[in-house]
Amino acid sequence: MANEERPFEKKELYSGSILTLDLWQVSLPNGKTALREIVHHKGAAAIVPVDEQGRVPMVRQYRVAIGREMLEIPAGKMEKKGEDPLDCARRELREETGLHAGSWTYLGPYIPSPGYCDEVVHLYLAQGLSQGENDLDDDEFLSVEWLPLRELVDMAAQGRIHDGKTAAALLMAARRLGV
Amino acid sequence: MANEERPFEKKELYSGSILTLDLWQVSLPNGKTALREIVHHKGAAAIVPVDEQGRVPMVRQYRVAIGREMLEIPAGKMEKKGEDPLDCARRELREETGLHAGSWTYLGPYIPSPGYCDEVVHLYLAQGLSQGENDLDDDEFLSVEWLPLRELVDMAAQGRIHDGKTAAALLMAARRLGV
Repeated sequence: MANEERPFEKKELYSGSILTLDLWQVSLPNGKTALREIVHHKGAAAIVPVDEQGRVPMVRQYRVAIGREMLEIPAGKMEKKGEDPLDCARRELREETGLHAGSWTYLGPYIPSPGYCDEVVHLYLAQGLSQGENDLDDDEFLSVEWLPLRELVDMAAQGRIHDGKTAAALLMAARRLGV
Repeated sequence: MANEERPFEKKELYSGSILTLDLWQVSLPNGKTALREIVHHKGAAAIVPVDEQGRVPMVRQYRVAIGREMLEIPAGKMEKKGEDPLDCARRELREETGLHAGSWTYLGPYIPSPGYCDEVVHLYLAQGLSQGENDLDDDEFLSVEWLPLRELVDMAAQGRIHDGKTAAALLMAARRLGV
């Protein structure tokens, strides 16, 4: 590829619990070199669950990086790199909302920040919902609110859903479902 | 807020050219503590430019973090935290495509990764386009391809636009324009 950058030296600066930070030296298409800060992340899955009345269980969760609560679709990290994303999606839906789904549709991969991070979030539409018990992680605090998909899609179109994966996945699901 | 996490100790682990990595200790709603890895980023702007024929100048760019080329809308980082995002959007549109726009509509803020990063990308719709000269950064290599908005929106709905901000912004612009 004409615009390809080739990494020729990779240095790990930090390895933590949810991310790793590398500094890469890359050769550019013009023969010069540049430094690239690269965040590694195991990846995640996020789900638009829709019940028979067209309602979506949304998760309201405090995000300390942003300093406020955000309204998001259910989502969570892979347990390890290479986990089957559908297994991750089933687990996170159950943990955060207690829901099981009879029907799963893959909406596609969502890459939040391709400029510096390798994270991929796999997006799903989940239907045929049945309620069980939720099971949050020890450090996870959230509330679930059921809202009409139609209203959420209007909010996303008006720029009132600020979480990127949530806005993208709601609008993708709406196109699939003709909402 | 019932679910709030309060940071009580912040340690900077790395300060680089495009991002800073912190390790925060936070107190949880149940009184326990947890560690949070937080990436700071200056923020960015991204633009859906649409010409009078309904075509969009898309940017094809190699993303070394992902290891392949990606198809994205024009976008770029703020020069400093707190820059007027519309100034950033005008500059990035001109630098990457050479285009000026007579009409700007704010689509909303897009937060790529609220779980660990404070980056906000401000999304715009730009119309009334006129062509000038582009002006890329020294380490920036990309090609511009004009594609119909209608086709791009179908691609986004089918999960074939993998860059998150691009998928979200195209679907938001389509709802605004009735495409």
